[in-house]
Amino acid sequence: MSIPALTDLSRCAVHTITTKPWSLRQCIDGYTAAGVGGITVWRQSLAPQGLADSAMMLADSGLKVVSLCRGGFFPAMDDAGRKAAVDDNRTAIDEAATIKAPLVVLVCGAIPGMPLQQARDQIAEGIAACVPYARERGVKLAIEPLHPQYAADRSAVSTMRQAREICDRVGSDYVGIAVDVYHLWWDQDLEQEIASAGKKNRLFAFHVCDWKVKQTDTLNDRGLMGEGCIDIRRIRGWVEAAGFTGFNEVEIFSEAHWARDQQEFMTDIAAAYKKHV
Amino acid sequence: MSIPALTDLSRCAVHTITTKPWSLRQCIDGYTAAGVGGITVWRQSLAPQGLADSAMMLADSGLKVVSLCRGGFFPAMDDAGRKAAVDDNRTAIDEAATIKAPLVVLVCGAIPGMPLQQARDQIAEGIAACVPYARERGVKLAIEPLHPQYAADRSAVSTMRQAREICDRVGSDYVGIAVDVYHLWWDQDLEQEIASAGKKNRLFAFHVCDWKVKQTDTLNDRGLMGEGCIDIRRIRGWVEAAGFTGFNEVEIFSEAHWARDQQEFMTDIAAAYKKHV
Repeated sequence: MSIPALTDLSRCAVHTITTKPWSLRQCIDGYTAAGVGGITVWRQSLAPQGLADSAMMLADSGLKVVSLCRGGFFPAMDDAGRKAAVDDNRTAIDEAATIKAPLVVLVCGAIPGMPLQQARDQIAEGIAACVPYARERGVKLAIEPLHPQYAADRSAVSTMRQAREICDRVGSDYVGIAVDVYHLWWDQDLEQEIASAGKKNRLFAFHVCDWKVKQTDTLNDRGLMGEGCIDIRRIRGWVEAAGFTGFNEVEIFSEAHWARDQQEFMTDIAAAYKKHV
Repeated sequence: MSIPALTDLSRCAVHTITTKPWSLRQCIDGYTAAGVGGITVWRQSLAPQGLADSAMMLADSGLKVVSLCRGGFFPAMDDAGRKAAVDDNRTAIDEAATIKAPLVVLVCGAIPGMPLQQARDQIAEGIAACVPYARERGVKLAIEPLHPQYAADRSAVSTMRQAREICDRVGSDYVGIAVDVYHLWWDQDLEQEIASAGKKNRLFAFHVCDWKVKQTDTLNDRGLMGEGCIDIRRIRGWVEAAGFTGFNEVEIFSEAHWARDQQEFMTDIAAAYKKHV
């Protein structure tokens, strides 16, 4: 099956972390000028000017606010820690509602040495504790499985299957999955799990970047689309075949790209999006 | 289930790459002095003194030669490349037979951009092409699944399940699996797949080290047992419950430990083995 290229950026969203040196104002202006249709806002982009000013800025921007990044980090060593995590996620839900983001993306968390199944149990409980609050505010929650290289301390949820199992357990139409090609490209069940998530209306987000074959850093050396080995377009074909009609979100953590002129980087993002997504 | 600690190093083997600055002679002397029972020989440890002298040195050492590392890297862009890979694996099998290693460990390979299923097909074909040669020489082949962080260029086999599927496909009692805690600790199916492999007499090797929570390098920053987050003893319990009675092989790639006095490192390995394996 041949997937046609995207010819414009109307369904492209960019994460503010992707252009980390830019303020929220600069992100809005830069993305709009490039023809990008959407923005995913990282919480640190809200801090400098505050939530209310950020919300006004975004409302006036013409950009669709796709999601807020990020909540999660539910597992903790004691009840107080787990309660603090739920409280912080409720704050994230409030922030999302204020900036009219329909979704909070969850990096679910892990505690080094804690058995991963125990961490996943705590994640399911934490998400369940947030659901009524999220529903009241009309904000959905997306579990983002992270690559197994982050299983020790960032996410005990490493696969679509584990995200599905938590979705099944929580059992709410407010809880779904964010598919990020960087984290999931290696998984032999990816196509089938995407199809299954589509049938259950759980495909809440689709993130793109690339997996560089030689990484200098496990966190901040992600590739611009085309700089790595992922067949991104093929995976976009799978999410679209599963009924996903949302934004293709460009989320890149890269010290190398952050060190560049961000306007030039934005130009490269636009070109890479059309060529590789 | 509580797994008793190991009180001596008779079932401990050390990979010569673990003490990379040491020659084969130094490895033999250092391991023997520490009370280690076995040695796994990396091919680069054979090169300086040649295969025949290495074989004599090992035969006289009193150490059990556990395996030869490593064969594999089967996928290639063309027939000539795949044939060269099979030839090199046959050479490895000859070397293993000469040093009386009953096993060659396979790092199966991957080609950036080649679909992983296609790479796995080529791996299965490559292994199948080596089996008659291996059987004639009495040398078994162990597929070592590698962590998904290596899926782009080192191994399209990332899980026990994928190794099982290749074993099923090749269908030889000369082909089994090397379980390495570093690569597999995150997999939710690990216990069950180990049990399944045990039932089919496919548990050919067990490798230990640790997963450091913050890695400075994806290749050469592995932890000594106890420096990371893996519950190694629990996994040893699983392989033993599955019938494994072979060596617990210490395989650590670490620039930090290679930079140390290797005799002191050996002392730390012995202590860490008793405390954490």
